[in-house]
Amino acid sequence: MCGICLLTLTYNIIIYHMRGFLVIGNKATTGPFSLKNIPGAGRMDILCRCISQAIFLSHSIRESMEVYLLLLGNPNPPRVVKIRSDELRGMSPDERSVAGLIRKALKFKAREKWTETNSGVFISKKDLIGLLEELSSFYRIYYMREDGKDLRKLAGKMKNPLFVLGDHLGVKKEDEKVILQFAEDIVSISKLSLMAEQCITIANYELDRAAQ
Amino acid sequence: MCGICLLTLTYNIIIYHMRGFLVIGNKATTGPFSLKNIPGAGRMDILCRCISQAIFLSHSIRESMEVYLLLLGNPNPPRVVKIRSDELRGMSPDERSVAGLIRKALKFKAREKWTETNSGVFISKKDLIGLLEELSSFYRIYYMREDGKDLRKLAGKMKNPLFVLGDHLGVKKEDEKVILQFAEDIVSISKLSLMAEQCITIANYELDRAAQ
Repeated sequence: MCGICLLTLTYNIIIYHMRGFLVIGNKATTGPFSLKNIPGAGRMDILCRCISQAIFLSHSIRESMEVYLLLLGNPNPPRVVKIRSDELRGMSPDERSVAGLIRKALKFKAREKWTETNSGVFISKKDLIGLLEELSSFYRIYYMREDGKDLRKLAGKMKNPLFVLGDHLGVKKEDEKVILQFAEDIVSISKLSLMAEQCITIANYELDRAAQ
Repeated sequence: MCGICLLTLTYNIIIYHMRGFLVIGNKATTGPFSLKNIPGAGRMDILCRCISQAIFLSHSIRESMEVYLLLLGNPNPPRVVKIRSDELRGMSPDERSVAGLIRKALKFKAREKWTETNSGVFISKKDLIGLLEELSSFYRIYYMREDGKDLRKLAGKMKNPLFVLGDHLGVKKEDEKVILQFAEDIVSISKLSLMAEQCITIANYELDRAAQ
């Protein structure tokens, strides 16, 4: 097989496998915070659990997974923290470990382009529109909302899905309008109102089963 | 309807709705520990996430849920911490909050019978056999193991299920022998090796769907 074909094939395989989550932290701090009070940093604990539940398996890390946190709290909103599982080093699944890497990322000067702050951790000052413009060039965007279509029925057809969901405060109406401009569909995980990280665990589970 | 019938009906409804998880913490400390290093307490962080993911919904607590943690680490094994969701007060879903209540429970003198250490939190010094003898008088015990039967296919038939699973170290062979004496069946959540709290989230999800 020629080099170009191999490259194309490899590229296609990589594309097929990618999966992402974007979680909106409505009050999540964009400044320094204490690891002794992670919930006090605008419920950063929720975002830490989202990363942990999205990325980690037992004793291993999922391949080809990206998690984006849009931090909208004071003092410097917006900030986006990106985690790329394939390059991630030095993170454990406990909240304090994840929070430590987010806190470190927030110490860097954020620009429009991504700045790597740790292996597999990046920061930028993109807003929701800018971020979704970038993501939608590669991912198919799905908005998670309780009244959406049952994810179980759609999971088998999804290629390179990236799910957008809110924290404990949900998603503001103006943000929802933006998301819906980019979203392929609205999907629902459960008829119960679950925590964000539970939605992520279940989405991974349904996609894993659909791919088997 | 007469009082006795109403009582019976209520009792049946309550019985039908109960659900439980027992997580074995192979090295989880049974003594004092620091909230600054929860993973260092024999991976107590895993057990905290198991409670959090089992008990909490977004902005609410699941009804009729019990979580049992069997702590087998030094210096005083065994200890069992029981969480009853219906009576639980003062717990948030973050690891530090959950760990704070476990730490408080471990300061109490543990006996064979349950001692309440906080509203909805109890401690005892039961071992695995004693605990399963008590639980099996009410619950149907299911052992979670990767090579078990697909939970999705069984969820609709389960009444008062209690799932037994291990932490990052799994379940020791001698403990597995004990569990299998009490277990109705062996169930599997996923073909992937998931973290304990992910198994709990997914079990709740499948049981919720089966009950709809």
